Amino acid sequence: MEYSLDYKTQNNYELIIIGSGCSGLTSGIYAGRYKLKTLIIGSSFGGVILEAHNIENYPGFTSITGIELMKKFKKSVDLLNIPILQKEVISIKKQKNKFCIQTRDNNLFYSTTIIICCGTKRRKLSIEGEEKFKGKGVSYCTTCDAPVFAERIVAVIGGSNSACQSAILLSKYASKVYIIYRQNKLRAEPINIENVIKNKKIKIIYNTNIVKLNGKNYLESIELDNIYKESKILNIDGIFVEIGAEPSVYFAEDLNLELSKNKEIIVDKFCNTNIKGVYAAGDITDTPFRQLITACGQGAIAALSAYKYILKKKKQKLKK
Amino acid sequence: MEYSLDYKTQNNYELIIIGSGCSGLTSGIYAGRYKLKTLIIGSSFGGVILEAHNIENYPGFTSITGIELMKKFKKSVDLLNIPILQKEVISIKKQKNKFCIQTRDNNLFYSTTIIICCGTKRRKLSIEGEEKFKGKGVSYCTTCDAPVFAERIVAVIGGSNSACQSAILLSKYASKVYIIYRQNKLRAEPINIENVIKNKKIKIIYNTNIVKLNGKNYLESIELDNIYKESKILNIDGIFVEIGAEPSVYFAEDLNLELSKNKEIIVDKFCNTNIKGVYAAGDITDTPFRQLITACGQGAIAALSAYKYILKKKKQKLKK
Repeated sequence: MEYSLDYKTQNNYELIIIGSGCSGLTSGIYAGRYKLKTLIIGSSFGGVILEAHNIENYPGFTSITGIELMKKFKKSVDLLNIPILQKEVISIKKQKNKFCIQTRDNNLFYSTTIIICCGTKRRKLSIEGEEKFKGKGVSYCTTCDAPVFAERIVAVIGGSNSACQSAILLSKYASKVYIIYRQNKLRAEPINIENVIKNKKIKIIYNTNIVKLNGKNYLESIELDNIYKESKILNIDGIFVEIGAEPSVYFAEDLNLELSKNKEIIVDKFCNTNIKGVYAAGDITDTPFRQLITACGQGAIAALSAYKYILKKKKQKLKK
Repeated sequence: MEYSLDYKTQNNYELIIIGSGCSGLTSGIYAGRYKLKTLIIGSSFGGVILEAHNIENYPGFTSITGIELMKKFKKSVDLLNIPILQKEVISIKKQKNKFCIQTRDNNLFYSTTIIICCGTKRRKLSIEGEEKFKGKGVSYCTTCDAPVFAERIVAVIGGSNSACQSAILLSKYASKVYIIYRQNKLRAEPINIENVIKNKKIKIIYNTNIVKLNGKNYLESIELDNIYKESKILNIDGIFVEIGAEPSVYFAEDLNLELSKNKEIIVDKFCNTNIKGVYAAGDITDTPFRQLITACGQGAIAALSAYKYILKKKKQKLKK
């Protein structure tokens, strides 16, 4: 489509933050304090953290739900009068000295800098009961939820590094931990595999898929597609879904952002991408640690980098 | 001194965190969740953030004092049963496959890994009268001392964010607040600069240094290197020194840690130093952004790196 060029008067920002999860909101707080003309565009307010029903590792709170915490983040953003638009971004294009952002409803927004922090989407099992028991036995975040299952029986679904680490951490709380994996061999780092195998609380069920979740209000049992110990039904209090997550940056295709082999945006420690004026933060980046507090840290850094870039541009403009 | 070798039975940890400010406490929270046998040793609980009277940029809180926030951090640490010792570390030595940490009261502690996050120490003016009037008109902590100067005339030395925030707080008590800065432009966040400029009690004196402090028992006047309103002498009841801070890692000399030209510990994005098993986080590192939220992010990363290192070591031991 043809982009209009009236961006000098409307829909024109110094910074547009794409993503309204924890890193996007933190970027917003910092951008607000730096007095940048800023807009946050996100398709789902709060992001993946909304799925955490008990966050115990965000310093400042001994226990808080993801929803509550994101509301608190939003309060700071609101106080600084940074607007949050609930829209889906479908393309970003470089146009003259601005980036042009198009949303699914065909609105156009222009900005000198952008921060991409729209996270990843957890892969789901897509089986019966998964939605029903979310937060009631179905978890996508071991670090957040492991302590809830003290002395309970849990299962990790998956065979990756994350699955193994999840099982090891769970074994410190739960009485028994199953790893249920569709392949016949874990595909994790040897150290993780070793630690899993020597852990007496962990039992691996290979070549098996989980097909259904049962229970009244909370998860009570799971159904497998193979017989295990004479039954396809296993009594389980909680499952941890660790079958990966996918960053989604298709909308930034035209920018030719440098991506890792896992399709994450490669950033340096200033949250710079390979494109000047474009920054990234949180789970969408190639940062190895996927924690709330580290995503927030990156959000702050990205905003500071954008601010410095804008100051530099303004200086250059004055010189001309 | 000779180190005793009975560390197998006592004072022996998997992780010792040196520093009990925001990054150290965050490391503690993560280490606790990873079930590492952990000890925090810090000479001043809460660190430099205690001096902040109004934190507005830590996501989750629209406004909170440093003291309150650090108490909240501590609650999470306490819940995980991580002990915090208030002691000063005077040396760290590598000894066989452990690090040996000595405190000023000659206690020894042993650990497989250490995280250094003891922040920075306030820079001094190094001018005549500074030592003499310390606590008698010379302060390094606005939050602590501002109320003492109700209806008095004070000066903040410096032009940073901290200097501006110090001046704003002082203006709530003092009858007049000077900001004396050697440059011709404040180097603070725009929001802070705006708040300073619109505050009628605050007067900025640019391009000027303070060279001498005068008074009998208490500070009475200061001497400038430039004439201000026809004199180099300004009648002042109190000065607040806000000219930055310096990292202090002298106690880690024997480790041969790689330092930046500003004497900060060089870390990579995993918070690794050049010494295996030694990590660093927060203001003591060469990280360019000195924010509460970024220091916390590093604290988490350092703990995760220590955890992974310990897992790897355990595996190597099993192989032998």
